[in-house]
Amino acid sequence: MIKVGIVGYGNLGRGVCLATAKAEDIECVGVFTRRAVDSVKPVTGYNVYSVDDLPKFKGKIDVLILCGGSATDLPATTANYIKDFNTVDSFDTHAKIPEYFDKLDKIAKENGTLGAISIGWDPGIFSMARILFGSVLPDGKDYTFWGKGVSQGHSDAIRRIAGVKNAIQYTVPKEDALKRVRGGENPELSVREKHSRECFVVAEDNADKARIEKEIKEMPNYFADYDTTVHFISEDELKKNHSKLSHGGVVIRSGKTTEENSELLQLSLTLDSNPEFTGSVLTAYARAIYRLYKKGETGVKTVFDIPLKYLYPKDPDDAFKTLL
Amino acid sequence: MIKVGIVGYGNLGRGVCLATAKAEDIECVGVFTRRAVDSVKPVTGYNVYSVDDLPKFKGKIDVLILCGGSATDLPATTANYIKDFNTVDSFDTHAKIPEYFDKLDKIAKENGTLGAISIGWDPGIFSMARILFGSVLPDGKDYTFWGKGVSQGHSDAIRRIAGVKNAIQYTVPKEDALKRVRGGENPELSVREKHSRECFVVAEDNADKARIEKEIKEMPNYFADYDTTVHFISEDELKKNHSKLSHGGVVIRSGKTTEENSELLQLSLTLDSNPEFTGSVLTAYARAIYRLYKKGETGVKTVFDIPLKYLYPKDPDDAFKTLL
Repeated sequence: MIKVGIVGYGNLGRGVCLATAKAEDIECVGVFTRRAVDSVKPVTGYNVYSVDDLPKFKGKIDVLILCGGSATDLPATTANYIKDFNTVDSFDTHAKIPEYFDKLDKIAKENGTLGAISIGWDPGIFSMARILFGSVLPDGKDYTFWGKGVSQGHSDAIRRIAGVKNAIQYTVPKEDALKRVRGGENPELSVREKHSRECFVVAEDNADKARIEKEIKEMPNYFADYDTTVHFISEDELKKNHSKLSHGGVVIRSGKTTEENSELLQLSLTLDSNPEFTGSVLTAYARAIYRLYKKGETGVKTVFDIPLKYLYPKDPDDAFKTLL
Repeated sequence: MIKVGIVGYGNLGRGVCLATAKAEDIECVGVFTRRAVDSVKPVTGYNVYSVDDLPKFKGKIDVLILCGGSATDLPATTANYIKDFNTVDSFDTHAKIPEYFDKLDKIAKENGTLGAISIGWDPGIFSMARILFGSVLPDGKDYTFWGKGVSQGHSDAIRRIAGVKNAIQYTVPKEDALKRVRGGENPELSVREKHSRECFVVAEDNADKARIEKEIKEMPNYFADYDTTVHFISEDELKKNHSKLSHGGVVIRSGKTTEENSELLQLSLTLDSNPEFTGSVLTAYARAIYRLYKKGETGVKTVFDIPLKYLYPKDPDDAFKTLL
């Protein structure tokens, strides 16, 4: 059995609990939290400990699955965890990946540990599609569309506006853009042409809805460059119709092998639950990290470095007999 | 520069010529044929040699790309080539892969060479989707649909019928089955429910078309278990409308992370030219085999064993900086 620890119990930590509980070759030693231990009740009934107790578990956990956020949590903490543990995380600030990689790789190699960074679906499975598709169809162009799905960052941005009680924002790929890309046009698409943003907002009583709508639509970076629609709804309606953290998207590569022949490659995900699926991906990579560590590997790996067979729950060296 | 040799110049060999000619890091030493050397004129202008001359090229070719057929050619010849060369092939007789693997792996290890077998899109890219999707969504069900596309085997089977001058057979996935799978139903689908077969046949003058149609539709294994339609057309129409070796398909995994949440993962290919795309995949894996051989690897690999970064035309250890 592979012994894992789960650090953090938000949406993603909950997803990892559910995924590890389903995996027959994985045993969860416990969930580690910075909150009061008694306040955390994992859906799977796992033991809960304070993160301060982690040093006591050195040697008793094969892989720590880190479920903190990329903005501040992972950059501040992973370097510390990887000194004592093999780790898997979902660091997703694309621009800062090289810096994050270099820092952790050095520490992991010094300490004889192994980490997988930026695991999930983007970065993660979508990145795998980009490198695979780009390598087998070099004369082409890549497109990544996200959605329809809930963007936590955009939802949070709306919630910070005065007079907003609650909000959910969906990123929606534009049908016309998808059609042009799938038609092999290889168009240059602006930000506005690729995605629109749909907002469901619960306003406080007596709030100025026109002002809220204007503030959303003009918010730089988040909304100003997009076609944005704003719907004011009740808290009940939000809970009833917009409580799933659905997401997904598609990576499309369109290109030519010769002037006459076009080829279209697509990988798409349609997810009812972004955190549950991401938790399931992290769990498969925890298995891979365990196996690679047993083979003597140290340092930091990404999805580009890890052979697919190591994700497979059964004997990795037998996978080709049935799945190839 | 990676020096490759190409063995065989049929549709696939032509595809590999085109793909290697486009790759900036690959140089083709020559095409090796069993036919009269003068009769083979590669589209890329490559040198042509007899396969009998191959031993002279030992040490001068980094990877041999084998473009023979899986039925008799590869099983009879790869074992001989892999004694002296690193190889890449597209062996696609799924049931015989374990036996083929074991035989070649032993010879390659004894001779210090490295081979990649069963490279292409199925087996190949579709196999990668099956193992990846199955690992990250373990509670689910896999479906592979092929087409719409030309099946050479089925086209050949029709051509062997008395009175048939020429024929092209398309394998067509059934829309209703695709819809049910994508809807998350996880249905049990019979062979007939998944695909239909559409045949375009040029009959000889005075041939009994009713008999030909009956023979096609009742042919065991190839057609009897499918809904088959037969269209009789002229040779001109066949040349004009059915000369592309188009193909493709989709791997779908539909499953659940919890009772409430379903996830749908899909990888699809829409190919104008099956052999040109397959040639491009073989070329990317020739690059990977070269790199792994340089790292000291020997034996036989499949797509499950080879990290994606080794396919990437640029520096594999830098890929994560831009593609992740």
